Amino acid sequence: MIHSLTLSDVLAEHARSRPQVTAVVDGSVRLTYPELDHRVTLLASALAGQGVRGGDRVLWLGQNSHAVLELLLACSRLGAVCCPANWRQSEDELRFVLTDLTPTVVVWEPSDVTTALHAGAEAGIWVRAGEEYERLLADGSSQEFAQVADTEPALALYTAAFAGRPSAALLSSAALLAHATSLLVVRQMEPGFTFLNNGPLFHVGTMMFCLATLQIGGTNVFTPAFDAEEVCRLIDAERVTQAFLFGSMIDAVTKANAGGKYDLSSLRFVSHSAEWDSMITVDGSPWCRSKMGGYGQTEVGGMLTFLGLAEGGAGFAGRPSPLVQVRLLAPDGSEVATGETGEICARGKTLFSGYFARPDLNAGKSAYGWHHTGDLGRREPDGTITFIGPKLRMIKSGVENIYPAEVERALKSHPAVADAAVIGVPDPTWHQSVKAVVALKPDATATEDGLIEHVKTVLASYKKPRHVAFVAEIPKRGFTPDYDALDAAHGGGNYPGD
Amino acid sequence: MIHSLTLSDVLAEHARSRPQVTAVVDGSVRLTYPELDHRVTLLASALAGQGVRGGDRVLWLGQNSHAVLELLLACSRLGAVCCPANWRQSEDELRFVLTDLTPTVVVWEPSDVTTALHAGAEAGIWVRAGEEYERLLADGSSQEFAQVADTEPALALYTAAFAGRPSAALLSSAALLAHATSLLVVRQMEPGFTFLNNGPLFHVGTMMFCLATLQIGGTNVFTPAFDAEEVCRLIDAERVTQAFLFGSMIDAVTKANAGGKYDLSSLRFVSHSAEWDSMITVDGSPWCRSKMGGYGQTEVGGMLTFLGLAEGGAGFAGRPSPLVQVRLLAPDGSEVATGETGEICARGKTLFSGYFARPDLNAGKSAYGWHHTGDLGRREPDGTITFIGPKLRMIKSGVENIYPAEVERALKSHPAVADAAVIGVPDPTWHQSVKAVVALKPDATATEDGLIEHVKTVLASYKKPRHVAFVAEIPKRGFTPDYDALDAAHGGGNYPGD
Repeated sequence: MIHSLTLSDVLAEHARSRPQVTAVVDGSVRLTYPELDHRVTLLASALAGQGVRGGDRVLWLGQNSHAVLELLLACSRLGAVCCPANWRQSEDELRFVLTDLTPTVVVWEPSDVTTALHAGAEAGIWVRAGEEYERLLADGSSQEFAQVADTEPALALYTAAFAGRPSAALLSSAALLAHATSLLVVRQMEPGFTFLNNGPLFHVGTMMFCLATLQIGGTNVFTPAFDAEEVCRLIDAERVTQAFLFGSMIDAVTKANAGGKYDLSSLRFVSHSAEWDSMITVDGSPWCRSKMGGYGQTEVGGMLTFLGLAEGGAGFAGRPSPLVQVRLLAPDGSEVATGETGEICARGKTLFSGYFARPDLNAGKSAYGWHHTGDLGRREPDGTITFIGPKLRMIKSGVENIYPAEVERALKSHPAVADAAVIGVPDPTWHQSVKAVVALKPDATATEDGLIEHVKTVLASYKKPRHVAFVAEIPKRGFTPDYDALDAAHGGGNYPGD
Repeated sequence: MIHSLTLSDVLAEHARSRPQVTAVVDGSVRLTYPELDHRVTLLASALAGQGVRGGDRVLWLGQNSHAVLELLLACSRLGAVCCPANWRQSEDELRFVLTDLTPTVVVWEPSDVTTALHAGAEAGIWVRAGEEYERLLADGSSQEFAQVADTEPALALYTAAFAGRPSAALLSSAALLAHATSLLVVRQMEPGFTFLNNGPLFHVGTMMFCLATLQIGGTNVFTPAFDAEEVCRLIDAERVTQAFLFGSMIDAVTKANAGGKYDLSSLRFVSHSAEWDSMITVDGSPWCRSKMGGYGQTEVGGMLTFLGLAEGGAGFAGRPSPLVQVRLLAPDGSEVATGETGEICARGKTLFSGYFARPDLNAGKSAYGWHHTGDLGRREPDGTITFIGPKLRMIKSGVENIYPAEVERALKSHPAVADAAVIGVPDPTWHQSVKAVVALKPDATATEDGLIEHVKTVLASYKKPRHVAFVAEIPKRGFTPDYDALDAAHGGGNYPGD
């Protein structure tokens, strides 16, 4: 255990090393590191008093709050698992989470949906955020806790709705702190870093910066949800270094600060527009220089590759974090050659510990000793990685593996194509052959032969469609083509493993 | 094993992610990452052919060379342990290393001492660096190796001559890479970083930057030993980012470059003198801003605390690395209060795996689940840490623990004192009382009472000496007082544990 370092350990160290530093700001709440450490001890003790043991789950149903960080740290102190769930889901979706996760304690903020769930709850101890949460915490005592191994899961984030329902990715302290360290490197975070948690904490994109800020002994500022004017006010008032902002959010903040009502110069962030750049301090770290690019998913702790580690590289996903290995693998576990498409697979310090209560899925995702992301990628000749698209289906034509996402990408690069989906149809000689279903742009024209020729200019010939069907619109399931509907309508079948 | 990341794994990743990057420069040798990876595979295969198995030791007896990095990486690939030993030691000292480490393979460069050792060697396979090493490597094949856990020791560095002889600190891949990552954070290293290995690779100070440079996919340049003119030439020729340079070495390099013969502007390093600053690029990273300060030792992987994480702090050792915890502990394992002196103890990702073949010493060093550094320190009110000195002895007076180093420091702050040592003498009431042995500066005067009063102005009263003996010179053992000789000459005894 001498090598173990949990989130709780990091907090205990900061309580000693940074007695005067503000750890948390949330509305009128301001806590130094010793104050946060003390509250986390009380909360862990109180949760233990409610029956929370190692491996048990504690669910947060609410907007952003410093209570999320406190619950996560208290769970880490106990060896339990904290899950901040997406509050904006439907009653049916949240009911699934409750049934799936079987939390010992639920801390909730009232909404129509959570109030209904609370009224019908048959299990778990429900604690309302705010006064009830504070009373629970006040019941705790300043006890000592047994040391917890940093390989124990501390955080659960729902993600990856493979089978129509999401699964909870379990992240250990070791993985979360390794990932946080990779952000310290690529974002060049230093003590004094102040992060505004204005994105949702149930998403790894905000959580990963919250934890990196904790790790470097900085200040986490919480706000319930994104509000452009409030973001401006908080950046000014708390001298925020970074917030969770992208494209249109940056435009909204720029607009809210028209006339320079607030001083945003403490923000060290990405260049965006002339007006934005004049308000903030454009940051020179690899993360900000490269527009925060890369490839990631919850299961790898956040980012697997960083564009900031591959400036000028050919692949727009960049190069792997210093704490992971990446391989592009074929379905048989062998490595594909440079330039060939394979599944993005990974090993390393930032990886998750599997999904909660999904043994079969976990076995498949870790085949051959590599985490399989479910996404396709390619090594460019300079070693950088290009993300191709999700590996939803695979077509087997002769001995060749063909991934629909790759062919769809080629089709969509044709000027006449509005949208495209690719399926495999039974073929007497090749087992399957490639069929494209294409929606053309209004008033655009293209022939079957013309599209097939176009794909051949971009991809190896064996990947080209042998048939093209033209449709008005590609049916969708979420963001991806509805392949089952397409197979039914266009004769798909004979997929490997069927 | 999906979370494991060895030094060998990092190299295997770079071979894919950085096919065109130069990994190693050493004289006429230039290797890209794929070339280095290939050579390391051949070397690991050849070492296995010589009987090297997991846990076996491979000893390097020579000056700096890219072969040291190759041997370390090959050992990591095999699960074996590479030890670069201090070539400048006496025949007796190196004979001790051979007997203690029982290496399976010794790679050696000829010197009077190593030639004599080789001639008398009764065990181990001796391979001469250069042609013989290249022939060995050429015998290897491109085989696959079983995955090695990153918790296995990969590097052994001799250090800490507690009992008159040094011990080999074992560092795992996990610890070495965690420490390298902490340098990536504090030194803000980026891809393209080029490190000149001009300090000795048997010392953690050079090795830690060599491995951080490997981890970020930079270039390691090797030179046999420090030569100011050659350092200038290599900085210019290889556009070196950082070298292993301190005080007088920087002066020597400045002098060697008088008139600006070489372009040193690629060097991003610490400010030193106006002339030096005009030759290089003064770097703004926390590591360079804070003059590379902190507290460290081989057993923690290098640096435990960084001044760069505590700018403006009171304690001149700074604050802990983001990947460790530090506690100031009393001999009973309890934490001492802020402002009190205790032993600097640590847990975390960068810590060593104990000393090779020293079970009793290892048990003592890891008492209460914390690594005991053997050094004394103090938390300042702002949470920063001050290093006091080595904990060689402890005096027990009543219930109080008194460390000689602390009292010696107080005595030496008196203007008349040239040197001082503190021992415990038997005391009928208090078990022991403090006695100071003091050497005054030439022509300076001080009284027993005057020195005792002076200590009282600096330390708690119970720590003041009750007796002072004046001597011409303090007997030494290396850099520290010879306490055994002092006890014999001045009536010391009754130490706790005696």
